Amino acid sequence: MVDPRLSVINARLNRISRIIAVSSGKGGVGKSVVATTLAFALARCGCKVGLFDLDFTGPSTHIILGAHQVQPKEEKGLIPPTVDGLEYMSLIYFVGDNPTPFRGEDTSNALIELLTITLWDKLDFLVIDMPPGIGDAFLDLVRLIHRIEFLIVTTPSMLAFETVKKQAELLCEQKMQIIGLIENMKADKSESVELGTRRLGLMYLGAIPFDPQVEEAIGKPQKLMQTSAAEALRKIAETAILKGKNQR
Amino acid sequence: MVDPRLSVINARLNRISRIIAVSSGKGGVGKSVVATTLAFALARCGCKVGLFDLDFTGPSTHIILGAHQVQPKEEKGLIPPTVDGLEYMSLIYFVGDNPTPFRGEDTSNALIELLTITLWDKLDFLVIDMPPGIGDAFLDLVRLIHRIEFLIVTTPSMLAFETVKKQAELLCEQKMQIIGLIENMKADKSESVELGTRRLGLMYLGAIPFDPQVEEAIGKPQKLMQTSAAEALRKIAETAILKGKNQR
Repeated sequence: MVDPRLSVINARLNRISRIIAVSSGKGGVGKSVVATTLAFALARCGCKVGLFDLDFTGPSTHIILGAHQVQPKEEKGLIPPTVDGLEYMSLIYFVGDNPTPFRGEDTSNALIELLTITLWDKLDFLVIDMPPGIGDAFLDLVRLIHRIEFLIVTTPSMLAFETVKKQAELLCEQKMQIIGLIENMKADKSESVELGTRRLGLMYLGAIPFDPQVEEAIGKPQKLMQTSAAEALRKIAETAILKGKNQR
Repeated sequence: MVDPRLSVINARLNRISRIIAVSSGKGGVGKSVVATTLAFALARCGCKVGLFDLDFTGPSTHIILGAHQVQPKEEKGLIPPTVDGLEYMSLIYFVGDNPTPFRGEDTSNALIELLTITLWDKLDFLVIDMPPGIGDAFLDLVRLIHRIEFLIVTTPSMLAFETVKKQAELLCEQKMQIIGLIENMKADKSESVELGTRRLGLMYLGAIPFDPQVEEAIGKPQKLMQTSAAEALRKIAETAILKGKNQR
């Protein structure tokens, strides 16, 4: 029997113009900070934006947002709270702060449930903080959500890029739409990630400088948006994402 | 029916004195570099050491070792090649350099297979580079390998530590043996990870300084062992791991 929730999911996402999945083949590259900052950057360009944390290995955008006091409202589904102007929903509302050893099937089920019951408003963008890697949760999301556009995050480290490359190749094989690749926490002038990205046939969207102020701005969105990292992401949002929107 | 391979696994690991699982609730904290460097540090103290890369989200120790030309030898099982004095085995010999979207069950199966067919020599230590997080592969390893001792790696970032904390709590709940926690890539004097570790009732084993030379030493084990990171790990190996051995 087909799970009846599956047909509900894309109906739920119907009023969202674009769905951007911030992904990384490797954890710890700053994916969650990039997703959160990007959501704010798009909002500051006048768009209505949602942020959806589906990182099963450890949701963390609520820490970045400092959103400890908010909860979704129940009303024939879950209505995402508004946090600093973003519609916000996270897996953390399901799992709480406890350790959550999800097995493959539980992950699929929790994911389907969360996608089914969340009632997003009409949005220009939904930014998803994806699970890292290409495990169950990642594969399920790719299967469940249509019209997904991938934004891939790496760091300058070759260890990170080698792993990220595999994810990118997998997405290319599956003919998924990839906006491009962002090089996060850049501290030198090396061009190896940029060259490697072009070799994959993907757009290199730019580098986000390593900025120690980002760590201090965790939990303080206003401060986060004043970092040089936020400024770099704002430019990427304008040139690669909003411009992309007009061209569609 | 019980998988007959399951009883073989612990027989295979019988000739290994101690099994150390280098783990992290979060990816990208430098777990693979710590595992590799620790394996070398133990070897330089005169121990016979194996390094086993079971990071399903992206095996990378072969890149750190620069071990591109070696392959395990088949002989009623797989005999790990020797790389710079370490017995070495990696998932990469199974999956190759292709993207590997393992589903939960495939992961379990690949893991069981790899544990069953690898013929380790008599070893003082087997250092395992664990999959990050607490997903299927991690849970399977905890279930399949007895006598496992955990070494948990975090960075100073509160985002990393919050996720790592959950993994530590899960291991504590399951009464697993935890050697302690290592704070990797430390660049300032903040004590929050140390205090947080003690609050969990765990040993804080020390900090490994952030050292840009580590990135340059990827693929060059000799150079890696000359970094300040390796020096810090050597001390941790001596005080927390080898000393622990004498006390047992």
